[in-house]
Amino acid sequence: MRKIGIIGMGHVGSAIAHAMVQEGLADQYVFIDENEEKVQAEALDLEDAKANQANDYQITVNDYAGLDDADVVISSIGNIQLQHNNPSKDRFIELPYNVEQVRKVSAKLKQTAFAGVLVVITNPCDAIAALYQKETGYDQKRVIATGTLLDTARMRRAVGSFFNVSPKSVSGYNLGEHGNTQFSAWSTVSVLGQPVQKLAEERHLDLADIEKDSIVGGYTVFMGKGFTSYGIASAAIVLTKAILSDAHQEMAVSHYQEKSGTYLSTPAIVGRKGIIEEVPLFLTSEEEEKLAASASSISGKFAEVVD
Amino acid sequence: MRKIGIIGMGHVGSAIAHAMVQEGLADQYVFIDENEEKVQAEALDLEDAKANQANDYQITVNDYAGLDDADVVISSIGNIQLQHNNPSKDRFIELPYNVEQVRKVSAKLKQTAFAGVLVVITNPCDAIAALYQKETGYDQKRVIATGTLLDTARMRRAVGSFFNVSPKSVSGYNLGEHGNTQFSAWSTVSVLGQPVQKLAEERHLDLADIEKDSIVGGYTVFMGKGFTSYGIASAAIVLTKAILSDAHQEMAVSHYQEKSGTYLSTPAIVGRKGIIEEVPLFLTSEEEEKLAASASSISGKFAEVVD
Amino acid sequence: MRKIGIIGMGHVGSAIAHAMVQEGLADQYVFIDENEEKVQAEALDLEDAKANQANDYQITVNDYAGLDDADVVISSIGNIQLQHNNPSKDRFIELPYNVEQVRKVSAKLKQTAFAGVLVVITNPCDAIAALYQKETGYDQKRVIATGTLLDTARMRRAVGSFFNVSPKSVSGYNLGEHGNTQFSAWSTVSVLGQPVQKLAEERHLDLADIEKDSIVGGYTVFMGKGFTSYGIASAAIVLTKAILSDAHQEMAVSHYQEKSGTYLSTPAIVGRKGIIEEVPLFLTSEEEEKLAASASSISGKFAEVVD
Amino acid sequence: MRKIGIIGMGHVGSAIAHAMVQEGLADQYVFIDENEEKVQAEALDLEDAKANQANDYQITVNDYAGLDDADVVISSIGNIQLQHNNPSKDRFIELPYNVEQVRKVSAKLKQTAFAGVLVVITNPCDAIAALYQKETGYDQKRVIATGTLLDTARMRRAVGSFFNVSPKSVSGYNLGEHGNTQFSAWSTVSVLGQPVQKLAEERHLDLADIEKDSIVGGYTVFMGKGFTSYGIASAAIVLTKAILSDAHQEMAVSHYQEKSGTYLSTPAIVGRKGIIEEVPLFLTSEEEEKLAASASSISGKFAEVVD
Repeated sequence: MRKIGIIGMGHVGSAIAHAMVQEGLADQYVFIDENEEKVQAEALDLEDAKANQANDYQITVNDYAGLDDADVVISSIGNIQLQHNNPSKDRFIELPYNVEQVRKVSAKLKQTAFAGVLVVITNPCDAIAALYQKETGYDQKRVIATGTLLDTARMRRAVGSFFNVSPKSVSGYNLGEHGNTQFSAWSTVSVLGQPVQKLAEERHLDLADIEKDSIVGGYTVFMGKGFTSYGIASAAIVLTKAILSDAHQEMAVSHYQEKSGTYLSTPAIVGRKGIIEEVPLFLTSEEEEKLAASASSISGKFAEVVD
Repeated sequence: MRKIGIIGMGHVGSAIAHAMVQEGLADQYVFIDENEEKVQAEALDLEDAKANQANDYQITVNDYAGLDDADVVISSIGNIQLQHNNPSKDRFIELPYNVEQVRKVSAKLKQTAFAGVLVVITNPCDAIAALYQKETGYDQKRVIATGTLLDTARMRRAVGSFFNVSPKSVSGYNLGEHGNTQFSAWSTVSVLGQPVQKLAEERHLDLADIEKDSIVGGYTVFMGKGFTSYGIASAAIVLTKAILSDAHQEMAVSHYQEKSGTYLSTPAIVGRKGIIEEVPLFLTSEEEEKLAASASSISGKFAEVVD
Repeated sequence: MRKIGIIGMGHVGSAIAHAMVQEGLADQYVFIDENEEKVQAEALDLEDAKANQANDYQITVNDYAGLDDADVVISSIGNIQLQHNNPSKDRFIELPYNVEQVRKVSAKLKQTAFAGVLVVITNPCDAIAALYQKETGYDQKRVIATGTLLDTARMRRAVGSFFNVSPKSVSGYNLGEHGNTQFSAWSTVSVLGQPVQKLAEERHLDLADIEKDSIVGGYTVFMGKGFTSYGIASAAIVLTKAILSDAHQEMAVSHYQEKSGTYLSTPAIVGRKGIIEEVPLFLTSEEEEKLAASASSISGKFAEVVD
Repeated sequence: MRKIGIIGMGHVGSAIAHAMVQEGLADQYVFIDENEEKVQAEALDLEDAKANQANDYQITVNDYAGLDDADVVISSIGNIQLQHNNPSKDRFIELPYNVEQVRKVSAKLKQTAFAGVLVVITNPCDAIAALYQKETGYDQKRVIATGTLLDTARMRRAVGSFFNVSPKSVSGYNLGEHGNTQFSAWSTVSVLGQPVQKLAEERHLDLADIEKDSIVGGYTVFMGKGFTSYGIASAAIVLTKAILSDAHQEMAVSHYQEKSGTYLSTPAIVGRKGIIEEVPLFLTSEEEEKLAASASSISGKFAEVVD
């Protein structure tokens, strides 16, 4: 029996729920949101879909005790309104609100017997994952943020588009903070059987244009629809699937790193127990510097959070 | 190759698109919306999901010519803002706006070679389907509105909940207008091997309570999240699947009825060519009257529309 | 985490496994078969599929301890060779072999902590389910045979074909023994909104022809491919899904009946705990007699088994 | 509307059909086999599954005209009996039988309007694909053999198993003939962020052991179950999906190579029109020699075929 909790039924949480029930991913869902009317409405809207869907499933609402035997809990708390009129385009604008929510949720999670993996989407997801880990006392391996899993998908979309291949046929990662200090680690990226750097040179393409396309993508979506949801939902879902099936799948997700003492996205092997193994990186020195700067940015923000 | 057009990328259109791409339903999608930024954003948000999804697919945007070889086109145009502060709780409040949009879309559709089935969600969907049929000149069999497919799902959800069985194990239909004159045709409804009327009597349940639960459901969702999306999305998807696979599946959808000269939801057999066959009804005289009243309500509204 | 055990990796067991992994149904599988080379081969063949599949999953082989936390265990033990040159066309020909196997398996199951539902396909599945229940001491509600779930699907296929509608749009059941004494309970069958008996009369169709078509179907498959697999696999899968998702779905499956003191297929509500509730039948007296005869046939065979 | 033809309904063809209908991959199927009883049985067995499946679909049997509008036709003709008692363990043992069948099928295909992609599984698939291309006169880009797509999956399974990661997280290819001259192109293989050769050295693993494990796998399956089916079925399905969805996905499949004048598996970009683009290889000189030897082996066998 697969059971998934989703805490925060906004645009992202409900898009995750919809996609999951539509494909029959889990058997039981627990939806949690402070806005009782909203979370009841999302649950009922899905219940109204059931007679026309292929799969069955059960939903309970605002039931923390129901998380006792959940396999995965996803934190998709957020307040997208705070992002509107945000001149710095910085995911940290939501921090104070989210910190307060995360503290409340953590206190309630600690009262449950939940022993699965906590998947953090709530932004700034690196610092928030660190906060969840600190507040719940969960083993660091079982608190994971989606981190640059979405940014990597955007980079692969952009590279794929430039070279006319499926994003699935682009390998490599965006690393660092799920925020402005992240970067495409071009030395890790391959397409059409070759390092993208070599291919870009041959074809006189500027990788900075691709990186910009990948980064601007998020803002284009945000400006056009007022929020982003499907890209991040798919990142959360693929991560959840890797956990449920104990896939030992390699993906760039934000996890605690001894070296930097912070949450940070680098590739790792993900399975039922969360982070199974680090995947070593062989970056250029320039990329190493960017990664360190990104780690430092997260540490700084986290320090503000916990004070 | 499966190709689907979605015209109107609001809450419903984008929820349909998300669910479809997530389960790999089609190979090509054409998204159309007057709000160019919005439709581009929805497409890009899905493109950002692709690297993390199981399936591939291609999306084009605002490309009517792309509908030439589409199997199904879904009209999910709407303006949910018009529903807010709508004291009459009447789906007809959106009519003038939607009529204008439908005329524009129909004119453009006529310039394409589209030969598939047009699925109408745009409300009031019975009158709008009639309008689409009139404006495009398409054979009546290939213009179908989701009609009471959603309301039936709500009734089955409510009955299932009362009797503690899956909505999928409740048979029977809500009939008539997808609006206030619709009704649960209790004489058609069975659960636990028996007519629900008999069972309700035995268990001292009032079917009016279940009907109310089923009808109020939509408003609960609307009040709680500001719109409804997942229930209607699933109705549109199951209808689309029946068309694609030429399933000859029985479902209550709104289709043109010779007898009343109007679009109206009663059960029909649906396949690749749209409405394949009428399913005869054996209603009580009270139900017949309700159905006639519902047909009359739609005819009246349609008359207003075309004037 | 969904975990499924399959005991007996012949044509049926492996077809079930293939379909399940292909659609990502479960996270862990335990395959058990006395033929170690065969079961290892089936597992490896699926492992060779994994890189080209959408989902991940883990397989262990001949590991009874692995069933401790399984949600569902399927018994697909059989020896199809015994059916060849079987003039009586009677599923009971496999009985002695299967009885011995079931006793062995039951003894091993009892040593596990398995607390889920046991789904019995092994023929004659009614008597074998009774034997499993007796040998394991499991609560009767959690030992279910697929019974006439397959025969019902065949009847719905045949009726659908006669009336040119999807089998999914035919309701009603085949009842009784999954064997020669079963029958189509025509009084329960509806299609195109009407009792099939009424419709057949109007259209001058002989239901005996349809029943024959439905029954002969199994032999046509058996004669043409040497065994049957996909029909029964889908029956087992839909039953497994209803259990996993606690669907409370109505289906005709073989379960213990107080009244007759035997396993017998009649409609029941199926969920996570197995049989949740009986669905009452309102048969004609002729159908009642057939059902009683079928129960009697099973009781007789079961008496032989346990002696 | 997605339509798929399967020619040859043996173990592999029917496993492909079962997996496809179970996941709702296509809307229409055409099954073709010289053994009329067998192909009718397989179709009927699937029809018996339909009432218990989530999706609808239509099947026609031995209907070449039905291939006119097919998207993909899969050739899974074979005679596995010829492989038993085959001391050379050489896929070429089936050649004379298959050549005759392929000539017959090609003649019939030419009489259809089929304009999609022909996917060849029939062994020896490289030579048979070449034969199909010659006999049908189809553009070389639209005749593709699964080639080392299966062998690559086996290598990825073996490498994944050695390093405890999902096969999906192993990149790289087996190249050359789908037969004894194929090889793992280790210089293309990466796992855990590093070239597998480097990692194997560090961990004192012998890649020859992994290669052997990957190659022996096929024989283990063959010896244990008498044939292989699920691994090859998944290869054919993932290739079919890439074609249907115009994915532009990179995969090692057997396709016509100007350089060697023969069909041979190297990575290529696959889409709706078949082979979209070659993916360049940067092999070691030793690997280049192996590839040339493999090409030469295929050319030799093909020369025998056409004489």
